[in-house]
Amino acid sequence: MTPHDAPDSVGLVQTRTVRLFTDAPLRLTHGGELRDVEVAYETYGRLDAAGANAVYICHALTGDAHAAGWHAGDRRAGWWDNLIGPGKPLDTDRFFVVCANLLGGCQGTTGPSSVNPATGRAWGLDFPLLVMEDFVAVHRALCGQLGIRRLLAALGGSLGGMQVLQWSLEHPEEVANALVVAASSRLTAQNIAFSAVGRRAITDDRDFREGQYAAAGVNPDTGLSIARMMAHITYLSEDAFTEKFGRNPQFDAHRPGFGIDFAVESYLDHQGQAFLERFDALSYLYLSRSMDYFDPFARVGVLDAVVARPVNYLVVSFDSDWRFSTAHSLRIVNRLEHAGLPVTFREIHSSFGHDSFLLADPTYHATLRAFFDRALEVGV
Amino acid sequence: MTPHDAPDSVGLVQTRTVRLFTDAPLRLTHGGELRDVEVAYETYGRLDAAGANAVYICHALTGDAHAAGWHAGDRRAGWWDNLIGPGKPLDTDRFFVVCANLLGGCQGTTGPSSVNPATGRAWGLDFPLLVMEDFVAVHRALCGQLGIRRLLAALGGSLGGMQVLQWSLEHPEEVANALVVAASSRLTAQNIAFSAVGRRAITDDRDFREGQYAAAGVNPDTGLSIARMMAHITYLSEDAFTEKFGRNPQFDAHRPGFGIDFAVESYLDHQGQAFLERFDALSYLYLSRSMDYFDPFARVGVLDAVVARPVNYLVVSFDSDWRFSTAHSLRIVNRLEHAGLPVTFREIHSSFGHDSFLLADPTYHATLRAFFDRALEVGV
Repeated sequence: MTPHDAPDSVGLVQTRTVRLFTDAPLRLTHGGELRDVEVAYETYGRLDAAGANAVYICHALTGDAHAAGWHAGDRRAGWWDNLIGPGKPLDTDRFFVVCANLLGGCQGTTGPSSVNPATGRAWGLDFPLLVMEDFVAVHRALCGQLGIRRLLAALGGSLGGMQVLQWSLEHPEEVANALVVAASSRLTAQNIAFSAVGRRAITDDRDFREGQYAAAGVNPDTGLSIARMMAHITYLSEDAFTEKFGRNPQFDAHRPGFGIDFAVESYLDHQGQAFLERFDALSYLYLSRSMDYFDPFARVGVLDAVVARPVNYLVVSFDSDWRFSTAHSLRIVNRLEHAGLPVTFREIHSSFGHDSFLLADPTYHATLRAFFDRALEVGV
Repeated sequence: MTPHDAPDSVGLVQTRTVRLFTDAPLRLTHGGELRDVEVAYETYGRLDAAGANAVYICHALTGDAHAAGWHAGDRRAGWWDNLIGPGKPLDTDRFFVVCANLLGGCQGTTGPSSVNPATGRAWGLDFPLLVMEDFVAVHRALCGQLGIRRLLAALGGSLGGMQVLQWSLEHPEEVANALVVAASSRLTAQNIAFSAVGRRAITDDRDFREGQYAAAGVNPDTGLSIARMMAHITYLSEDAFTEKFGRNPQFDAHRPGFGIDFAVESYLDHQGQAFLERFDALSYLYLSRSMDYFDPFARVGVLDAVVARPVNYLVVSFDSDWRFSTAHSLRIVNRLEHAGLPVTFREIHSSFGHDSFLLADPTYHATLRAFFDRALEVGV
């Protein structure tokens, strides 16, 4: 039996692509517009006759549309395969699950390295600035295309959770339940600082070429891998690093010098190099920057719509997450609760830090499962 | 009155240079040797007739010999001027204070960018690997030159505290009192990870040229500034960043885009650029790497000498320091206490993170003052 034959796997899947905004352009929040936006997406399960079982997955900074199942020939399943499948917490026998690469991404959806029809070369830094509202606008257009008028639930971790929160505040009539995991409604100065230095490593790389690296036949490998390695440190807890690597040498014995010697150095090197295979430097700039600007509760009246048409919230944090700590989740919970909205909050114990949202912690998964089950019971 | 005329200032000072290891070379712990080691140092106060009032300052990663007072024309006093001067906690009316740029540095002491007499160009990566014992060997040679046979105290923060700890364990007969502040006896995987990514930014910079950047007339500015910006995030607490910058824009209003917009971005940019004026990329590699390898208590018998000739310890941590947290200091305290050594431990409340050791927190300074006063009373 191959892994995709397992009874709890959605099996072999393919990423499909749809072209949206073909008639009227997408107007971006901070100016500019895009026509003919390509969106890569996958679906698992079937939309029921009432259109009442759709769950939309919003992915994080470096995710893609391939959340579950197997692409032919791949050695790894989709990035959230532990959650999504027959009998899994997000049970594809009962739910219709959608996941799309977000606007600005580099995994099949239009982004800053796509060709600008006006110039015939990559958009580069001429691509419009993206904020959370823009991602949501494209998700909504995809739902329209798929015949989904109202989501039973939207779910996302980290940047994904921020999209879910934005969607629920802006169009509560479209989201019955919102699951906001390991997210933030307002990055701190330290959060912004980490992202800013990562972006700086990219834009200061001589091969960035003001964003026109593809036309020059080069790629800012150094900057992009430095950004990834640095960000990765913030995705794990200090304890997780200690448990995983401690001060162990990578080889039989220490080789004192400036090469890779400690195991943690080898791990980071691998993270940085592997990232170059799958991610684009301009997408990294655009998507990370969208988080810096996200601050929905700073806007007067932002809660008016959702108070008029309440969304049912689940907010989840992990106690070892120091990128978006429990304090970030509690700020969201407090704002929603003070507006009288139904909010369930869980802080999950996990030693793995921010990346815990991708792992199959039993308490975490049981929490999601219970929330989805109840959502289905209550209905859209 | 100019600042250097203030009654509590040591006034105008000059960095002097001495050449050591002129007869016999310095043999480095991991191999290699150095002849004619230049050492830049400053002294404040006077060595008393009994030679019993000397306090040696070991500086941190990017410090230098200029700990106190003013260089003619400078707009800033030495880096630890708030601590050192007439009537200050380290009272130069009573103590003879010595501070030297450490081996491998770039502020007057021989380092990897010094000329290798064998080639006539910079040592570069041919400079011997440096560990804590090597720094201490040069400090000891300087003390010999200055006629100091036994220190009343050695004091250092961060990497400086690590040198003090090493010195006290290796040559307890030379150190009556050891003040180890915001230091560690064993970096964690996360600590190493941050340093490793910083070094990687330097060595992957195309202008690093395998360490021979000076001969090529270039400098790895991008890598060195990225390393500094990233490290700087770890020197402040998250709260300090929030208090200092929050989400404030740098200009009158936000200018959404990829330029400097948030105040914290401008601050980091300044830190990165200013660092290029005063620091050398090879020194950054060598000095940061020495910390990764420091793990004195892993060595069997390391405490034998100090148990036979006890040193009196003061170990200080800051509660908001997440680079070398209180747990690091407590590990040192526990090892020393279990060996029966006299150890005073203080965790100081401060919201500024690792850099607190450079600041004039009243409780912190009162603690140092009391310890120095008692040291003088007890004598060498």
